[in-house]
Amino acid sequence: MSQDKPYILVTNDDGIAAPGINALALALKSIGEVIVIAPDSEKSAVGHAITLSDPIRVTDFSKNGLWRGYSVSGTPADCVKIAVGALLERRPDLVVSGINLGSNAGINVIYSGTVSAATEGTILGIPSIAISLATYSDPIFEPAAEFAIQISQLVLKKGLPERTLLNINVPNVPKEQIRGIRITRQGMANFAELFDRRVDPRNRIYYWMDGKKAELEEGENVDDVAIRENLISITPVKYDLTNYEFIPELQNWLKEREKK
Amino acid sequence: MSQDKPYILVTNDDGIAAPGINALALALKSIGEVIVIAPDSEKSAVGHAITLSDPIRVTDFSKNGLWRGYSVSGTPADCVKIAVGALLERRPDLVVSGINLGSNAGINVIYSGTVSAATEGTILGIPSIAISLATYSDPIFEPAAEFAIQISQLVLKKGLPERTLLNINVPNVPKEQIRGIRITRQGMANFAELFDRRVDPRNRIYYWMDGKKAELEEGENVDDVAIRENLISITPVKYDLTNYEFIPELQNWLKEREKK
Repeated sequence: MSQDKPYILVTNDDGIAAPGINALALALKSIGEVIVIAPDSEKSAVGHAITLSDPIRVTDFSKNGLWRGYSVSGTPADCVKIAVGALLERRPDLVVSGINLGSNAGINVIYSGTVSAATEGTILGIPSIAISLATYSDPIFEPAAEFAIQISQLVLKKGLPERTLLNINVPNVPKEQIRGIRITRQGMANFAELFDRRVDPRNRIYYWMDGKKAELEEGENVDDVAIRENLISITPVKYDLTNYEFIPELQNWLKEREKK
Repeated sequence: MSQDKPYILVTNDDGIAAPGINALALALKSIGEVIVIAPDSEKSAVGHAITLSDPIRVTDFSKNGLWRGYSVSGTPADCVKIAVGALLERRPDLVVSGINLGSNAGINVIYSGTVSAATEGTILGIPSIAISLATYSDPIFEPAAEFAIQISQLVLKKGLPERTLLNINVPNVPKEQIRGIRITRQGMANFAELFDRRVDPRNRIYYWMDGKKAELEEGENVDDVAIRENLISITPVKYDLTNYEFIPELQNWLKEREKK
């Protein structure tokens, strides 16, 4: 194994057998030594869950000799933790999570297992990227895979600020229809949840959660808007959740309270 | 049912039978009409997971006639979604999540089911509070329950900024030992994960994840530091994850790239 090539940990939330992770691993092989450590089954919408109450099982996995790694009975965040904490012989230089089926933009960033894997990499001090394709069917992986190479090279060269990862969404169109790249912010359009209430064969009530974005937030720097315009969207995501601007006002609350 | 009293949705991630949610529901009954909608079992460290691939079951729950609500076969975020989307007859005025056993400070905020329930309330446009007690054993709930009343009244009166919730941690000491309240920011001390590798009776490898905070970040405005000093810590948490400061630098990356 050469120490000169960057060591790249590839993961996802669609599971190690998903076609998107295969496209990503094959692409990144061209610029580094790739190891794939990913959930053994689909773990979408798991947020930043980690597995503390159950044992975590790890199984060798090889994709027809094209790439190798481990499948893990846990969440995307678990995969990155156990990769760095127990499985890998050395620290990876980069974590890349994806290529996810379905965009991870707007409020969805909060629920995204794809993004949580990149967040976990960042927490562990490793530059990390999440990459998603804005479709659930008929994926065209090539443009996303090609962009994954370019952005990985940039991040390997330049690094990323503390606590910050790149969240990338690629429109699902052929390469020649991609109009460019836009740096965006996380949109804030809410979801409209629908709960479909049903009765099971044993006469018990259950619900299916469903939902769609209520209305897209407009503004050309919004992630969802960029994707809709056939642009690759790059949002720098930071996981310091403190609302610093509100702290002075909160201090006033306490002062008023003390006066009483 | 009086429409004058505030309508308060109480939830948690320790499960509807946990003593902390009972202490919280009983306390908030003194200032409002309380409904409890919480997971049917412990859902710690689930992050902001939501349940899309499985049906969600809902069961009536009554705590000896002291309070009532529903137990839900889902995550804390599911509970808030299904409460507002399907179960409650009107929108709650406030969501309070807790009282969690174990602090939710620093990086843990990202993994916290307790905080995710409050985040979900905020996403749905309802002022929301997460409250945790910094212990896993011998909890002293009274100071946290009493402070939950005070801060709920403040939030009901003043509201909260967009996309912002309050994340509160209370030290586990008798009331007279609590030295005050401090507005804090999310600490950034990393965890040191340990993976305990074992062999099961069928000779298969498995791992237990364990970990502890590597080193506390110092600084009196850090959440963990405040708790350690026997202060109630209030961190305003915002879920706009965009790292705005890094956007100009990222724009430069793209410009440099185009020049080539």
